[in-house]
Amino acid sequence: MTLSSRPADLSGVPPERQDLLQRLAAVRAHSLALAAPLSPEDQCVQSMPDASPTKWHLAHTSWFFEAVVLQPLWPGYAVFDPRFFYLFNSYYEALGPRHPRTQRGLLTRPAAAEVLAYRRHVDAALERFAGMADPQAWAAAGPLLELGLQHEQQHQELLLTDVLHALSCNPLLPAYAPAEAAPLRLVREQPEPLRWLPRPEAIVEVGHGGQGFAFDNEGPRHRRLLPAYEIAERLVNCGDYLRFIEDGGYRRAGLWLSDGWAQVQALGWQAPAYWLAPGDPRAPSDDWQVFGLAGVQPLDPAAPVMQLSFYEAAAYAEWAGARLPTEFEWEAAHGAPALRDMAGKVWQWTRSSYEPYPGFRPLAGAVGEYNGKFMVGQIVLRGSSLATPPGHARPSYRNFFPPHARWQFSGLRLARDPQPSTQASQEIRE
Amino acid sequence: MTLSSRPADLSGVPPERQDLLQRLAAVRAHSLALAAPLSPEDQCVQSMPDASPTKWHLAHTSWFFEAVVLQPLWPGYAVFDPRFFYLFNSYYEALGPRHPRTQRGLLTRPAAAEVLAYRRHVDAALERFAGMADPQAWAAAGPLLELGLQHEQQHQELLLTDVLHALSCNPLLPAYAPAEAAPLRLVREQPEPLRWLPRPEAIVEVGHGGQGFAFDNEGPRHRRLLPAYEIAERLVNCGDYLRFIEDGGYRRAGLWLSDGWAQVQALGWQAPAYWLAPGDPRAPSDDWQVFGLAGVQPLDPAAPVMQLSFYEAAAYAEWAGARLPTEFEWEAAHGAPALRDMAGKVWQWTRSSYEPYPGFRPLAGAVGEYNGKFMVGQIVLRGSSLATPPGHARPSYRNFFPPHARWQFSGLRLARDPQPSTQASQEIRE
Amino acid sequence: MTLSSRPADLSGVPPERQDLLQRLAAVRAHSLALAAPLSPEDQCVQSMPDASPTKWHLAHTSWFFEAVVLQPLWPGYAVFDPRFFYLFNSYYEALGPRHPRTQRGLLTRPAAAEVLAYRRHVDAALERFAGMADPQAWAAAGPLLELGLQHEQQHQELLLTDVLHALSCNPLLPAYAPAEAAPLRLVREQPEPLRWLPRPEAIVEVGHGGQGFAFDNEGPRHRRLLPAYEIAERLVNCGDYLRFIEDGGYRRAGLWLSDGWAQVQALGWQAPAYWLAPGDPRAPSDDWQVFGLAGVQPLDPAAPVMQLSFYEAAAYAEWAGARLPTEFEWEAAHGAPALRDMAGKVWQWTRSSYEPYPGFRPLAGAVGEYNGKFMVGQIVLRGSSLATPPGHARPSYRNFFPPHARWQFSGLRLARDPQPSTQASQEIRE
Amino acid sequence: MTLSSRPADLSGVPPERQDLLQRLAAVRAHSLALAAPLSPEDQCVQSMPDASPTKWHLAHTSWFFEAVVLQPLWPGYAVFDPRFFYLFNSYYEALGPRHPRTQRGLLTRPAAAEVLAYRRHVDAALERFAGMADPQAWAAAGPLLELGLQHEQQHQELLLTDVLHALSCNPLLPAYAPAEAAPLRLVREQPEPLRWLPRPEAIVEVGHGGQGFAFDNEGPRHRRLLPAYEIAERLVNCGDYLRFIEDGGYRRAGLWLSDGWAQVQALGWQAPAYWLAPGDPRAPSDDWQVFGLAGVQPLDPAAPVMQLSFYEAAAYAEWAGARLPTEFEWEAAHGAPALRDMAGKVWQWTRSSYEPYPGFRPLAGAVGEYNGKFMVGQIVLRGSSLATPPGHARPSYRNFFPPHARWQFSGLRLARDPQPSTQASQEIRE
Repeated sequence: MTLSSRPADLSGVPPERQDLLQRLAAVRAHSLALAAPLSPEDQCVQSMPDASPTKWHLAHTSWFFEAVVLQPLWPGYAVFDPRFFYLFNSYYEALGPRHPRTQRGLLTRPAAAEVLAYRRHVDAALERFAGMADPQAWAAAGPLLELGLQHEQQHQELLLTDVLHALSCNPLLPAYAPAEAAPLRLVREQPEPLRWLPRPEAIVEVGHGGQGFAFDNEGPRHRRLLPAYEIAERLVNCGDYLRFIEDGGYRRAGLWLSDGWAQVQALGWQAPAYWLAPGDPRAPSDDWQVFGLAGVQPLDPAAPVMQLSFYEAAAYAEWAGARLPTEFEWEAAHGAPALRDMAGKVWQWTRSSYEPYPGFRPLAGAVGEYNGKFMVGQIVLRGSSLATPPGHARPSYRNFFPPHARWQFSGLRLARDPQPSTQASQEIRE
Repeated sequence: MTLSSRPADLSGVPPERQDLLQRLAAVRAHSLALAAPLSPEDQCVQSMPDASPTKWHLAHTSWFFEAVVLQPLWPGYAVFDPRFFYLFNSYYEALGPRHPRTQRGLLTRPAAAEVLAYRRHVDAALERFAGMADPQAWAAAGPLLELGLQHEQQHQELLLTDVLHALSCNPLLPAYAPAEAAPLRLVREQPEPLRWLPRPEAIVEVGHGGQGFAFDNEGPRHRRLLPAYEIAERLVNCGDYLRFIEDGGYRRAGLWLSDGWAQVQALGWQAPAYWLAPGDPRAPSDDWQVFGLAGVQPLDPAAPVMQLSFYEAAAYAEWAGARLPTEFEWEAAHGAPALRDMAGKVWQWTRSSYEPYPGFRPLAGAVGEYNGKFMVGQIVLRGSSLATPPGHARPSYRNFFPPHARWQFSGLRLARDPQPSTQASQEIRE
Repeated sequence: MTLSSRPADLSGVPPERQDLLQRLAAVRAHSLALAAPLSPEDQCVQSMPDASPTKWHLAHTSWFFEAVVLQPLWPGYAVFDPRFFYLFNSYYEALGPRHPRTQRGLLTRPAAAEVLAYRRHVDAALERFAGMADPQAWAAAGPLLELGLQHEQQHQELLLTDVLHALSCNPLLPAYAPAEAAPLRLVREQPEPLRWLPRPEAIVEVGHGGQGFAFDNEGPRHRRLLPAYEIAERLVNCGDYLRFIEDGGYRRAGLWLSDGWAQVQALGWQAPAYWLAPGDPRAPSDDWQVFGLAGVQPLDPAAPVMQLSFYEAAAYAEWAGARLPTEFEWEAAHGAPALRDMAGKVWQWTRSSYEPYPGFRPLAGAVGEYNGKFMVGQIVLRGSSLATPPGHARPSYRNFFPPHARWQFSGLRLARDPQPSTQASQEIRE
Repeated sequence: MTLSSRPADLSGVPPERQDLLQRLAAVRAHSLALAAPLSPEDQCVQSMPDASPTKWHLAHTSWFFEAVVLQPLWPGYAVFDPRFFYLFNSYYEALGPRHPRTQRGLLTRPAAAEVLAYRRHVDAALERFAGMADPQAWAAAGPLLELGLQHEQQHQELLLTDVLHALSCNPLLPAYAPAEAAPLRLVREQPEPLRWLPRPEAIVEVGHGGQGFAFDNEGPRHRRLLPAYEIAERLVNCGDYLRFIEDGGYRRAGLWLSDGWAQVQALGWQAPAYWLAPGDPRAPSDDWQVFGLAGVQPLDPAAPVMQLSFYEAAAYAEWAGARLPTEFEWEAAHGAPALRDMAGKVWQWTRSSYEPYPGFRPLAGAVGEYNGKFMVGQIVLRGSSLATPPGHARPSYRNFFPPHARWQFSGLRLARDPQPSTQASQEIRE
C-alpha cells in the first residue's frame, strides 16, 4: 500500500490564503510519511485504552477538519462518509456521540486504504474551500484551519508514541524504522557533569503573548513572582538514571510520592518502560538495552532518559537531592544560553499541575473542549521531544499527561532551591 | 495479498501415506480459503480475550504440527522461526511458556504474509517428512498428524466464530462475505409446528467405539441407562425465539438459572448476541435483523436461532415448558429418521456438563492436554454447525463451551419428559 | 449480650403439631448457641462477597419463616419490621427486591440485640400460629415449616463456615472457641494405609425415595447404571495431603484442571486455605499448623484435610493415581461397613456437576427457587461435616459449591477404576 | 460499653509540661465522646476502601503516640500489644509493614473494649513519661506530642466523615445522633443574594509564619503575586445547588471537567452524595431531603451544600459563571470582615492542586511521611467544617483530597475574575 499523498493543488486559491494551505499540505503529508513504515496491522492495533491506532490518528485528524471547518462553514460540502462522524470523533461532547475510546482497535474497517481516500477527499475539499469561500467564511475558517494544523501536529507525536507502545508489546520487539534510517536516533555524547544555572528572585512574565499561533491554555500572558532557584543545564541522561536504579531507586519507598510507590509495587516497575535489563529473554544481552523507534539498542549513557512517568522523574529528583522545576521556572529560564536541550530531545516533567492561568477562557464553540476540560489530574511537561514535528514547539507550550503515564517521550531536567554555601555549578551527589 | 496455497507435492511420498497427506493438504488449503475474504487488519484483531485473531489461528495450527510432530520426530527438522514456539503455543504447559492469550491481538508482526510463509514451510516439511520418515517414526507420526488435521478443522470453525465476533464489534457491521456469495447462509423455510419423537427407557451405548478418528473425550464407549424421554424433531428457530422475547423472556427472572439471570442483568441482554432490534442505529429498520457472515439480514423466522448462550437456551426451554436433552439422550436419538438438522446447522446445547466418561484416560504426552484438562465448568454441545468444516462432525462428538459463551454458532433442540396423557406430537405451548 | 432463647411454649399447640414445633424450637435454639461465642463485631462482619455475617444468618432464617409461612398463611400476622423483608431476603426473586449480597456487612443496624428480638418475635408467632391455624392452613404450613427448619440447619453450617473465614482474615487468628471447649475438634488418630472397596457393575437406585424430609433436588429416585469401580475406605487426611504439597503438587501444571491451574497461579495457592506454613509470621512455628474453629493448632496428619477447593481435590486425586467418585458411586457405596467417615467429618467433593435428576421438578411457589436455579456451574459434595448440625445429613443429600470454593469444611475421598491385575486393597503410590 | 476516659492525673508532671498534657487529655477525651453514640458494630465497619472504622481511628491515634514518642524516646516503655504495631500503622513505610488499608473492617478483634484499654494504657504512659522524662527526651518529645495531638484532631473529623458514610450505606439510614441532641446541625438562615468582595492585584504573603503549631505543608511562608479577583462573601448553599440540579447540571457535559463528566456517567451521579431525591424509597417524601449526622432531614435551602466532590464544585462554578478561588486567593482574603463562614461550616474546595510551597522540606524522621508524600493528585480545601474539632483550624491550613472524593464535609465558595463594567456585588446569574 502506498501512503504518499498527492501534491497540493493551489491553482484556484487566492494568494493570501496560499501560505496557510501550503503549510497545511506539508503537515498532512508528514502524517502519511510517519505511517509509511507501518503495515496495515501495525496501523490498526490499539495496545491499551490510552493509546490509539495509527489509522485512527490519520482519520481523526481529517475528521477534525470536516467537523470543525468544512461542514459548519461550507453549506455544500459533501461528507465522505457520514458514519465517520461517529467513528472518528475523539472527545467532543458538543459534536455528538462517538465510538468508545477503548474500542478504536476493533475498527478493522474502514481499511487503511479507505482512510487514505478519506484524507484525500478532505485535502481536496480544503483546497476547493480555500478557493471559493467568501471573505466572511474564510475569516471564520482561518483560525480553525490553523488549529486543525496544530492539532494534526500533536497527533503526529501521539502516532509515534502510540505505535511505539504497540511495538513494545510484541515479544519480537520489532523496530518502527531500522537504526541506520532513523533520523530520530539520539547521537551518542560524552557523559558530563551536571552544572546548575542560578536564577534570582524576580517577577517574570509567562504565557504566550506575542504574534503567531498558540493554544488557548498558553494564555493569558501574566506575571508570576518566582523565588530564586537553580536549574540544571542539561537533561538527566540514561547514565544518571542507571545509577539511580543501581542504588535501589525502585526499592526505596522513601524516595517516592505515595501514589508513585503504589504504582511501583502494583505494576512491578524496576526501570523505565522500554528498558531491557541484562538477560531479558526478548533480546538476550549482558548489558542494559533500550527499546525505541529504531528497535532494541544498547543503552547510551549520554542519551536523555525517556519513557518516564512523573512519579519516576520525581523519585529520581529526590534521590539526586534536587527537585523538578515548576513550569514557570522552566519557562522563565528558557532562552538562557547555558541551558541545552530545552527542546527537541524529550518532554520535561515539571512540578506543576495543569491548571488554568489567571483569566483563562477556553475558545468559543466546540473547540472550547480542546484543552480546558482536562485541567485536573494532569502534570505539565515543557519543551518538546525528538518525536515532535518541526516547528511545533514554543517556550510557552504546555503539554500535559497524568502522572502515571510513561509511554511518552518524556524525561526530566532537575532544579533545586538556592544553595547558599556551595558553588552553583557542581556534579550531583558528590 | 494472495492466500492461495501451493498444491501438495506428493511425488516423494509412499503410496500408503498419500491419503493422509492429501487430506491434510485439503484441510490446510481450506484454512486459507476461509481467511481469503479478510484484510490483514481483519486477520490481526482480537475482539475479546476469549477470541483469537485469524492470523493466530493460521499460525497456531501450523505450530501444532511443528511442536507435536516435526520437531519431536524429525531430528533434522529446521524450524521456521524459533520464536514462534513462544508466540503460537495456545495452552500446552508441557510445551513451554507462551504468549498470553489476552495479547494475541497485539502481534501485528509477524505480518499475515509471514504467517503464510510459515504455513508453506510447515506444509513442505510435512511432505518431506512423509517421504523420508522411517516406519517407526511414521507409526508415531500418523495419529498425531491425524490429530493435527482434526485440530485444524476445529480452528477453522473457531476462525469464523471469532472473526464474526470481531466484525460484530464494528459499528459498520461489515460482512465477512456478501450474501449472494455466501454458501453459509441458511435457506428460508416455512415455519412449522414442533413435533416430538418419543424414546422409551433403554440401556444405550454411547461414545465412540468404531473405526476412524475420534478425540479422546469421546471414549470409552460405554453403556448408559436412559429413562424414557421425548426429543424435538426440529431445532428452535428464530420465529420461536422471537415469541419468547416478545413474551418478556429476558425480563422474567423465574425462567432463568441464577447465574444466567445475573448475566442478563449485568450485561443487559435483551436478545441473542447478533440480533438487531427494530430501530438499531447501526442498520436502521422497522423489523428485527440478524448479523451474520453475510452481514445484516432480515430475521428469518424459519432459520435456527444461534449465537445463544446456554443460559438463554435453558431459559427458552423453561419458557416452552420443556428442557434441554442430556448429551446421552441426544446421542441415543441420533440417526432416527424423524430428527432433522442434527448436524450442519447449529451446535445444540445439552443439559450435560462436560465430564470424563467412565474409564476416560487422556492421550499420552503433550497432547494429553488437548481435552481432559477442560472437564470442569463447561457444557456439552452436540451436532455441528454451518461453520463446521465438511467431514468433521460425528454423532459422538463432544463440543464444549462455558455456559455464558454466546458468540458460537450455537442453538438448541428441545427435549422433555414423557407426556403420559397427551399426544406425543404437538406444537409447543398450545 | 445474652443470646439465650426463651424455652418454647407449646401449651396452646395441638398435640399432633407439637413434635414439629419442638424440633423447630431446638433448631432455633441451636442457632443462638452457635452465635454465643461471638462478639457483636464478629457477628456483623462480612469477610468476602460470598460469605454472610452471623447476624445476617440469624435474621435471614427468621425472615424465611415470616416470608414463606407467617405472612402468606396468617392474615393477621403483625410483621416485626416491614423493612426487614428488604434487608434479609437472600435471593428469592419472587419475594421482591433485596439488599445487595455484597453489602450485608454494612448493616451495623439493626444491632445484634434487635435481631434477637426479631427471632423471639418470629418464634412466638410460630407457636401462636401452630395453636390457632385451621387444618387447611396447617396442612399448607407443615411442609414449609419443615423446609424452614432444614433451611436454618443449612445456615447453621454456613454460619460456622463464614465466621471461620472472617476470623481467618484477621492477622491475630482468633479462635471461634477455645480448643479445650471445642467438641468440634477432630481427635488424633494413627495414620493408616489406604484400602479400597471394590464395587461391581450394577444398576443402582439413587435419590431420596422413602419417608421423611428431603430437598427437591434429591429426587426423583431413579436408576443408574454404574460401571465397576473402587472407592477408598477412608478420607484423605492431612498427612496424605502434606506429601502432595512436598512433592510439588502446587507447582506441577500437569496435575491440574485448566481452570484450577489458573486459580493456583492467579491467587498464589500453595496449601489449603487455612494451613500455615512453617515460619508464618502470624503464629510462628517450625511446623505446619492449621487454623480452625479452635484457633491455630499443630497439623494433625490423621485428621481429614479440609477447606479444599474442588480443583485441589481433583489435583490431589490425579497425583495419587486415582480420581474422585461420582456422586452416584458415592451414594451407591454408602452403607458399606468398610467405609468410614462417610458423614460428620468433611463434605466430600465428587466428580459430578450439580444437575437435575431425570424428571426433576422444583417445588411450587417461591420456594421453587430453593435449589433448582443453581443447577449450573456447581459441583456436588456428599456426606456431611463436623459443622453440620446433628440429624441434618442423609445419604441422598446433595450439597453443592462452585469448584473454586475453599472456605467450606470440604475434603475428599478417592475412587478409581477397577484394577484388574492388582489387589484391591493397597496403599496409594506404592 | 462505656467509652468515658478516666481524668488525666498530672500530679507527677512538672508544671511547665502540664499545659500540653492537659490539652492532650482533652483531645483524647473528645475522641471517645465522638465514638460514644456508636455501637460496637458501627465502630467496626469499613464501608469502602478509603474509609476507616471508628475503632481503627481510636487505635491508630494511640499507635501514633506509641510508635513516634513512647517507644523511641522511653527505653523502658512496655508496649500494650506488640501486634498492634502491625495492625494500626496507617501508611508510614519507615515504621514497618502494616495491615492492608482495605481490610481494616475485618478486624473484629481486638474488640472495641480492648481498644479502649489500649487507649488508657497509652494515656497513662504519656502522663508517666511527662513526669519522668529528662529534659533532653522531653525536648524531643514535645513537638511530636503536639503533632500527635493535631493528628488525633484530624482523625476526629475523619471518624465522623467515615462513620457517616457507613451509616449512609445502610438502607435504614440511621442517625449518628438524634437531631435534637446534635450540636452539629446547621442553623436555618434566610436565603440571601450572593455578594462579591473585590480584591486588587497585590503581592501577598501566604503560609504559616508566626508562633504556634502548623503542619510542615503550611510553610515556608512566602510571597505570591495575585492578580485582581473577586470572592463570594458567603458559601454556596443547598438552595443555590438545587437550582443547578434543576437546570440540568448533572446532564450537561459542557459544564464539567472531562474526568468529572466520566465520573458522573460511570457512577450515575445526580445530586450530592447524601441527598435523597423526592420519592426515594429509603425515606419517602415529596421533597428533597439530606442525610447527615442527625439522620434524614428536609433540605434546608440556606444551609451550605456539602458532601460535594471537586468535580461537582467546579461544574457548579462553571454553571454560575464563576470559578473556584485558588488557595492563595482564599488565604489572602481571609480575615476580611465581609467574608462569612470561612471556617466551621464546610471545607471549601479551591482551584489549587496540592503542591509543595517553594522551599518546602518535610519533617525529619518517620513523621516526614505525614504530608509531603501526598503532594500529587490531590486538591486543596481551605477553611474547616462543622466536624472539625474546636481550635484545629487556621487560615494557612491546607486540607486535601482527591477530586472525586465526596464523603467529606466539603462545599464551596465562588470566586471570579474582575468584572470591569458591572457592579461588584450582585446575585449570580441575574
